[in-house]
Amino acid sequence: MKFSIERGVLVKAVAQAQSVVERRNTIPILANVLIEAEGDSVKFRATDLDIEVVDKTVAQVERAGATTVSAVTLHEIVRKLPDGALVTLTDDAAKGRLTVEAGRSNFSLATLPKEDFPVMASSEYESNFAAPAPVLRRLFDKSKFAISTEETRYYLNGVYMHVADGEEGRVLRCVATDGHRLARIDAPLPSGAEGMPGVIVPRKTVGELRKLLDDDEAEIAVSVSETKVRFATPTITLTSKVIDGTFPDYSRVIPMGNTRRMEVDAGDFAKAVDRVATVSSERSRAVKLSLEEDKLVLSVNAPDSGAAEEELVVAYADEHLEIGFNAKYLQEIASQVDRENAVFLFNSSGDPTLMREGNDTSAIYVVMPMRV
Amino acid sequence: MKFSIERGVLVKAVAQAQSVVERRNTIPILANVLIEAEGDSVKFRATDLDIEVVDKTVAQVERAGATTVSAVTLHEIVRKLPDGALVTLTDDAAKGRLTVEAGRSNFSLATLPKEDFPVMASSEYESNFAAPAPVLRRLFDKSKFAISTEETRYYLNGVYMHVADGEEGRVLRCVATDGHRLARIDAPLPSGAEGMPGVIVPRKTVGELRKLLDDDEAEIAVSVSETKVRFATPTITLTSKVIDGTFPDYSRVIPMGNTRRMEVDAGDFAKAVDRVATVSSERSRAVKLSLEEDKLVLSVNAPDSGAAEEELVVAYADEHLEIGFNAKYLQEIASQVDRENAVFLFNSSGDPTLMREGNDTSAIYVVMPMRV
Repeated sequence: MKFSIERGVLVKAVAQAQSVVERRNTIPILANVLIEAEGDSVKFRATDLDIEVVDKTVAQVERAGATTVSAVTLHEIVRKLPDGALVTLTDDAAKGRLTVEAGRSNFSLATLPKEDFPVMASSEYESNFAAPAPVLRRLFDKSKFAISTEETRYYLNGVYMHVADGEEGRVLRCVATDGHRLARIDAPLPSGAEGMPGVIVPRKTVGELRKLLDDDEAEIAVSVSETKVRFATPTITLTSKVIDGTFPDYSRVIPMGNTRRMEVDAGDFAKAVDRVATVSSERSRAVKLSLEEDKLVLSVNAPDSGAAEEELVVAYADEHLEIGFNAKYLQEIASQVDRENAVFLFNSSGDPTLMREGNDTSAIYVVMPMRV
Repeated sequence: MKFSIERGVLVKAVAQAQSVVERRNTIPILANVLIEAEGDSVKFRATDLDIEVVDKTVAQVERAGATTVSAVTLHEIVRKLPDGALVTLTDDAAKGRLTVEAGRSNFSLATLPKEDFPVMASSEYESNFAAPAPVLRRLFDKSKFAISTEETRYYLNGVYMHVADGEEGRVLRCVATDGHRLARIDAPLPSGAEGMPGVIVPRKTVGELRKLLDDDEAEIAVSVSETKVRFATPTITLTSKVIDGTFPDYSRVIPMGNTRRMEVDAGDFAKAVDRVATVSSERSRAVKLSLEEDKLVLSVNAPDSGAAEEELVVAYADEHLEIGFNAKYLQEIASQVDRENAVFLFNSSGDPTLMREGNDTSAIYVVMPMRV
């Protein structure tokens, strides 16, 4: 195998590969990226056995072939090469070495045989559809903060992507929850997605997927089966197993009858929560919200270190209400709001509270209260 | 005590205080900043028993007095207040609370009595002189990277500031070493510093001092005794104990007879060292330098992972030489060079090597070789 490629193109392809490989590995070949050169293109493939990413890029291939080499080392080397350099990779199978040359730099890296590289079994996808990158970005960006980190509830360690009935017809929906808060984000159902099985996309896959979604113009090909999900751009294909579990019936958690409506500037609200929470050093800081007509008082009381109080002008026309929340949860949901004011719908101090952006029901958040 | 102060001024004064207090503390009052209001100014004082910093700033004092409050909490609160806010601090000694008010925010913080705050004993300074901030900045910035972190050799855990004989007369000199490399930086001797005792300024003090030296126009008042050192601007006074030990006779380590001279672009050199070191995963990566006439080849050989080689054009006119160094040490000394080329003076592959910037002997570095 021998090919030449521009440093910038190479660094991008290898960056995605090295982020998929696990840092601590007992199986040496899982630290490697499989490089396959053929025709006028080169494929870079990396896997952690749950996720596989393949980046296909154009290169000047002089001699076809394939080998595997440490993804992290190759990435480090290429990253440090000067901008604009032409990099030549040459495989010497007999010596078990890959040579990387650029200008006056010359590297020789240990390889492992391509035959040992675990290529993910291909599978039949029941559903294939295309979605614009910004649509998928919104679905996952606005839900991922609520993914649970508790390993015992493994079925909550991802984003549940499925087809659901929205207020205006069928939607593509992403839901994540850790039992304390929940995010439910809807998008118009892409054509071809109707029969899609619901899948739980693991946290790490959501992170890797994010890197494919930066281009506003890109159209992402999505394929879904009961066990796998695949996202593809013309150059990158990300395949992932999905979490083998049943996502709980989240609809029962979403309060429908909350009528006490508070509207507040989301930025001011998040900053005020941040400030009052400062006086408490506990990990789960409780913030108390006291509502009167058009007035919100946020307060924190930490007997040992002090107390804090802040007043905000809000739109609120219901009777007096006091309710407590985890400060971090409040800040996280408030920071999801990017266009309009945050609208909170309360019931009582013991019931889940609903938050949305203005009157937009395509992204709603639920947060459980805390006793204060 | 009651006074009002602009948020920006307050945040600066408290930032310096909270960086001196130790995060983990068994003595509660050491986490606090002592706030003393009198006349038209307020003093913020913090200490870790080894270092004391006092920041004096102008404020609208309504009622004189003093109290102590958590430095970290106060800093966090003030930092999060909106820009330009006027902050009012009111002490309620009876309740043991300090109230911090700004706009619609109101905080009440637990205080500890000012009488319990340990104020550093004042001492007689044998030497008092003034030095421009850029001069002190250079002395400490260029030497601190070589400070040892080995606690058993506590007398190397700082920068040795003393008066010495330079090539062109008496100089103010800073030296740091960890036994593997050494930095020796000279500055013209300020008037009044002649009789200064040599002192070892601890690493943490060097870090805190750095914050006083950002202003190019500032003149720093320096006071030195056998046990303490003090650096003062018109608003901030930093007092520190010095390390109670004897700095070793470093002059014996500095090679005077090295004649093999290599001149190289410091930036290109550091980048090349960084690249070739990538192939080795060991913590102390050895880089081999092979010198021929006007040619330097840097190489690393890591049997398990690979090898790397890079060629640089240098000025070298002596016979062939091979010598190995720790890659990190080479990069660190090369990054001290900011105006001219790096000049290396070698003797043999087993002898310490000297590095300086062009022909400037006011900053020299020594690095021990490694077997490769």
